[in-house]
Amino acid sequence: MNFKQLLRHPSLRPFIDQARFGIEREGQRVTLAGKLARTDHPNIFGDRTFHPYIQTDFSETQIELITPVTDSIQELFQYMAAIYDVAARTLPKDEMIWPLSMPPKLPEKDEEILIAKLKNFEDVLYRRYLAKEYGKRKQMVSGIHFNFEFGEELLKLLFNHQDEISCFSEFKTELYLKTARNFLRYRWIITYLFGASPMSEENYFMDELPLINPVRSIRNSALGYTNRPNVQVSYSSMEQYLKDIEQMVEEGKLSEEKEFYTPLRFRGGKRVADLAKTGVRYIELRNIDLNPYVRLGIAQEQVQFLQLFLTYMLWTEEKENSDQWVAEGTLRNNKVALEHPASQTEFYQEGVAVLEGIKQMLLELDWLEPLFLVEKALDQMNHPEKTPAARLNQEAQRTSQKEIAVKLGRQYYKESHEHPYQLAGFKDMELSTQIFMFDAIQQGIEVRVLDESDQFLRLQHKEHVEYVKNANMTSKDRYIVPLIMENKIVTKKILKEAGFRVPDGEEFSTMAKAVNAYPKFANRTFVIKPKSTNYGVGITIFKDGANLEDYQAGLTIAFKEDTSVLVEEFIPGTEYRFFVIDGKVQAILLRVPANVIGDGRHTIKELVAEKNLDPLRGTDHRAPLEVIQLGELEQLMLKEQGLTVSSIPQKNQIIYLRENSNISTGGDSIDVTDEFSESYKQIAVSAVATLGAKICGIDLIIPDKESDPRINSTAYAIIEANFNPAMHMHVYPFTGKGRRLTIDVLNLLYPKRDRI
Amino acid sequence: MNFKQLLRHPSLRPFIDQARFGIEREGQRVTLAGKLARTDHPNIFGDRTFHPYIQTDFSETQIELITPVTDSIQELFQYMAAIYDVAARTLPKDEMIWPLSMPPKLPEKDEEILIAKLKNFEDVLYRRYLAKEYGKRKQMVSGIHFNFEFGEELLKLLFNHQDEISCFSEFKTELYLKTARNFLRYRWIITYLFGASPMSEENYFMDELPLINPVRSIRNSALGYTNRPNVQVSYSSMEQYLKDIEQMVEEGKLSEEKEFYTPLRFRGGKRVADLAKTGVRYIELRNIDLNPYVRLGIAQEQVQFLQLFLTYMLWTEEKENSDQWVAEGTLRNNKVALEHPASQTEFYQEGVAVLEGIKQMLLELDWLEPLFLVEKALDQMNHPEKTPAARLNQEAQRTSQKEIAVKLGRQYYKESHEHPYQLAGFKDMELSTQIFMFDAIQQGIEVRVLDESDQFLRLQHKEHVEYVKNANMTSKDRYIVPLIMENKIVTKKILKEAGFRVPDGEEFSTMAKAVNAYPKFANRTFVIKPKSTNYGVGITIFKDGANLEDYQAGLTIAFKEDTSVLVEEFIPGTEYRFFVIDGKVQAILLRVPANVIGDGRHTIKELVAEKNLDPLRGTDHRAPLEVIQLGELEQLMLKEQGLTVSSIPQKNQIIYLRENSNISTGGDSIDVTDEFSESYKQIAVSAVATLGAKICGIDLIIPDKESDPRINSTAYAIIEANFNPAMHMHVYPFTGKGRRLTIDVLNLLYPKRDRI
Repeated sequence: MNFKQLLRHPSLRPFIDQARFGIEREGQRVTLAGKLARTDHPNIFGDRTFHPYIQTDFSETQIELITPVTDSIQELFQYMAAIYDVAARTLPKDEMIWPLSMPPKLPEKDEEILIAKLKNFEDVLYRRYLAKEYGKRKQMVSGIHFNFEFGEELLKLLFNHQDEISCFSEFKTELYLKTARNFLRYRWIITYLFGASPMSEENYFMDELPLINPVRSIRNSALGYTNRPNVQVSYSSMEQYLKDIEQMVEEGKLSEEKEFYTPLRFRGGKRVADLAKTGVRYIELRNIDLNPYVRLGIAQEQVQFLQLFLTYMLWTEEKENSDQWVAEGTLRNNKVALEHPASQTEFYQEGVAVLEGIKQMLLELDWLEPLFLVEKALDQMNHPEKTPAARLNQEAQRTSQKEIAVKLGRQYYKESHEHPYQLAGFKDMELSTQIFMFDAIQQGIEVRVLDESDQFLRLQHKEHVEYVKNANMTSKDRYIVPLIMENKIVTKKILKEAGFRVPDGEEFSTMAKAVNAYPKFANRTFVIKPKSTNYGVGITIFKDGANLEDYQAGLTIAFKEDTSVLVEEFIPGTEYRFFVIDGKVQAILLRVPANVIGDGRHTIKELVAEKNLDPLRGTDHRAPLEVIQLGELEQLMLKEQGLTVSSIPQKNQIIYLRENSNISTGGDSIDVTDEFSESYKQIAVSAVATLGAKICGIDLIIPDKESDPRINSTAYAIIEANFNPAMHMHVYPFTGKGRRLTIDVLNLLYPKRDRI
Repeated sequence: MNFKQLLRHPSLRPFIDQARFGIEREGQRVTLAGKLARTDHPNIFGDRTFHPYIQTDFSETQIELITPVTDSIQELFQYMAAIYDVAARTLPKDEMIWPLSMPPKLPEKDEEILIAKLKNFEDVLYRRYLAKEYGKRKQMVSGIHFNFEFGEELLKLLFNHQDEISCFSEFKTELYLKTARNFLRYRWIITYLFGASPMSEENYFMDELPLINPVRSIRNSALGYTNRPNVQVSYSSMEQYLKDIEQMVEEGKLSEEKEFYTPLRFRGGKRVADLAKTGVRYIELRNIDLNPYVRLGIAQEQVQFLQLFLTYMLWTEEKENSDQWVAEGTLRNNKVALEHPASQTEFYQEGVAVLEGIKQMLLELDWLEPLFLVEKALDQMNHPEKTPAARLNQEAQRTSQKEIAVKLGRQYYKESHEHPYQLAGFKDMELSTQIFMFDAIQQGIEVRVLDESDQFLRLQHKEHVEYVKNANMTSKDRYIVPLIMENKIVTKKILKEAGFRVPDGEEFSTMAKAVNAYPKFANRTFVIKPKSTNYGVGITIFKDGANLEDYQAGLTIAFKEDTSVLVEEFIPGTEYRFFVIDGKVQAILLRVPANVIGDGRHTIKELVAEKNLDPLRGTDHRAPLEVIQLGELEQLMLKEQGLTVSSIPQKNQIIYLRENSNISTGGDSIDVTDEFSESYKQIAVSAVATLGAKICGIDLIIPDKESDPRINSTAYAIIEANFNPAMHMHVYPFTGKGRRLTIDVLNLLYPKRDRI
């Protein structure tokens, strides 16, 4: 089959970069001092065997992060970053993920290296066998497994342009076989470029002679974690491949199929033998060292390069004797792996030739965007000191590899921890959704972003699929319910009919009708507001009645915002947000206008700057709280109090900088859930039930929360019910206890799952 | 108690016109020729005893329309009009509602006057007793019962400003007792002003001497439907009132309490005796003749006048001996009822004095708006020929009362029938909601409009409440479902994943990214569209690929409408709307661009004018179809075909006037439900199930509907799923069978109710 010819077909051009990707990344848990962790895999992840994202590999300390399969590299790294963040932040406060492929200093005694505590006894038995067969220490090495599948349309077009093979899956198998053979032949180039295990830490080579000189990749050398040399499997055809593996098992050279530790695995069905039926669906590269210089262990450019490299493996010619061809590759790889990292490689010329070949291919295919990656690789071919292994080795000269690993590890630790409300990879999404995704990933519920800008998620646990928008809009609420809440008139009618206190008022569609009603409100405390805007725009409050002129002015302002205007009784008191989920008040929040508290020494400006240092404060809704501004409005507010930004308030004097209590203008969020008696919570719960809602943020005005609403009929009034209430401000309040509402929503969606 | 003093309190002013209203209106069913109907009460209303709006009174032919209780007169007439429309349009095609209080010509034989066929045997027995006691003929008279309650706040303020009575319900009873006594004393004025039964039709006075001269109101005279003179009940106190009624029953003068046919009834609990406990909650006036000059039998101004009149009855002084006071009133009423309608009344001076008193009260209370009604009444006092009785009598001189009644009846029949898709009283609401409300009323499901401009309804059947918006948004759909449909990307992802064919495409958030993807679409048939607009705005179709320039132009247009743009495979074929409710395709609609069909004789302009005569066509979405315009776009379209508005198309030649098939631009709606095989319906049903929707309009592109989608994988593609699909176009299509989707929605909401 002339794949090069097929790849050249112009109809393929638009799809040439189409592929699917997946990554598994291992890493040792260590203390912040770089000592192998002695703790168990965190309990909150639930049963690791079924966790879609976070499992353990060989040892209890070896965490394994698994991305879903994605259609783009960008998406791959989004999930990778998110899963990394979740793992890193779930570990005990003094633990981090070791950034190197080679493990940290291992215990002297083998028995102190703990095999992963898996539920399934067979899994434990297999690990025990491995420990015996290869030694526990070798199993402690970590790396990247990279899953790669050419795009469906790309494959179909290739298939359609040939007529040698009539079965699509057979065709794919042939295609991946060629890719694999060439990859195995040239994989030394990956070892050269990506190798990053130049030396081991203490107690790694306990029984063998330690290496004297640094190398490119211990992990990818014969000293790494490979089968014994007597394990020989042919890649000439799928039939032969499967037959050989079967024979190795029969002869006892492998305990079972999955012990075949080739740098490239074919993947089809669940078991290797299934490949006979399923054909190859994708390939798994297992020879990528952890890149210590990036938090995730592999950089986006590396994956892009791998895609080019694999496409070239399909493109470029191979030799007829495939077993020999592959064996030659193994030989070269093993040599290159043990070369000094700063030295030129023995196979420099072949390396350059292959890279030039890739370049040529890209030019022929008009696939120009990634050309720079080839240039970069060529540069590294010419400058071995720029390879990660050489870099790591060089830096280690000054201190030690361990110290560098600890330094990098701590840096990544900090990056993962400094904004606990954010989820790496998805920082453009709303905070509530980021927190919600964090929890879903942590709890082992599969989560996919269907539309990032629309905060649209797909969740799955076993067969149970749920769609969620904004982290609070789910299948659990009936459609009519948010429509009720969206309409203030209807909400009030329903609540009033059910006996709840709501502000008395009327709706008007014309100025004339509203003016006619003036006498009803003239001497009351009331508010004029547009029917359907929500952000305080167009609202006028009359605390002691109004003359006709002011009344009309208020109406004019409101009618500018909406064709319908409400004139409503104004109920004085403090407004609290009650967050009700599934019939329970899970959080109560008080919002306070932007303010600072004096200390008798600092100016208002200094106090604001100080308060703004809180990592919970940010801008543009990127943090649970917004930084306090000192703009026109704030200065005006100060002026009205006879103050300027340079005034020095007395100790404990509270200076308000805003009239409104919106979080978006620097207000504080204060959790007061535990300060309320059951009776108020009961009101919120029943009101939400009356509206039929499962998830609702309901706002109550309460003049005095010590007053008993069961006795005092004016102890509260319901102001508004929100069907899209923000959740992040409850999870990360300014003061008071955080309430993990996102978990409550997950529990509502998946009440019966086998974890918390 | 000095009620006048209380009413004068300034704090009451804003609430002085606050009241609650209800109407029951009886009417005989007759043929369009004015003969008493021989048919049964229509079956579709279900069990009339439980129908909230449409029942029967004494006889099978006597329909009774009942409004809900409303807080305003305007609302009262909205429901009254709607219920009238439903009743009128549900009767057999050749039946109408007789507009007079006096029945049409009655059968000679008593046994041909059929007692209402009620399920409850006790109800039938009671009617048999009445027939025997009063004669069947008297029972055939119809009228208005008017329920009136002073407003809650008004009553509370009155109560708060006095300290004679400490119990609120006792206070209300006193208040209504005074109102009642004065009303009974002065009710002759109502008989004078509203009386409209000047003479009877044939066979009414079978056993008695017929009246020689016309009168003001047979119905309100001693010849009308009243208790025998030996039934005497005192209104001096509630205690006495109840005691007297009890005694009348004990003495056999009444068969039971409800046989007490006073012109004013106190209403509290279910039975008269309950009043002792509940107090009076409202009063029911029973002395209003049907006003033949308005379709509903009573005019809005009449109800307004009654409110003034009743308020004045509370305001004005009464004499101490209340029994004598009431008796005097009865005497006067009976005299006035039998006066010649065109004559000045004997009690002219008292009448003027009362009306002047009302005027004075209004002036004192600053309640000026309804003053004109008092002037009108004074005018009728001075000009008896302007009273309805006089008018009817006068007109009858020229022809006959019967002929006038038939003429008026037919006029009202026409008004109710000419726009079957509209519901009187609620014509400002969307057509789908009007049709839905029609069906709910017809089926006896209580329906209240919570917000007219928002199409928000509250339904109730027994204890089961449902809220509905736009007639298609209900509690039966889960909230996430419309959110999925609102997002085209998410909808397509979910449908594609489930194996449905959707147009292939991509979403772009920047011009640059979209331009990069150009090669993928360059040679395909595709469409560029904004992500979330729905009305065809910003869409460009490329039927044979596009050059880069045109591609960019298309993107620019789309990016003007939205920040996200879709570039999507264009699938040629015909678009059909499948309307799925509760897992069934209930309608399939084809929309065709505005067009006319030639006849070889008329110009396009004439053909358009002819087509626009269809009563289904209107403007501004007030009808199921829009009138065809001949504006710029249409003329341009003609020009492109080498035509002008004056061209005369050949016979059967179809001339299209628009490219787009929107109904809103004059397109035709064609029901094709029965033309599709099950296999296409199955696709629509499964796709909607995949999205999780109960109510959904899903649009399929089908190149050839004879092609079998189970064999041909490109037989269809799903274009869009709509969570707010219009229903009226299916109910009243241009051609093909109408599909009453509104009933399907009612069946979804109330599957177990005891009617269809």
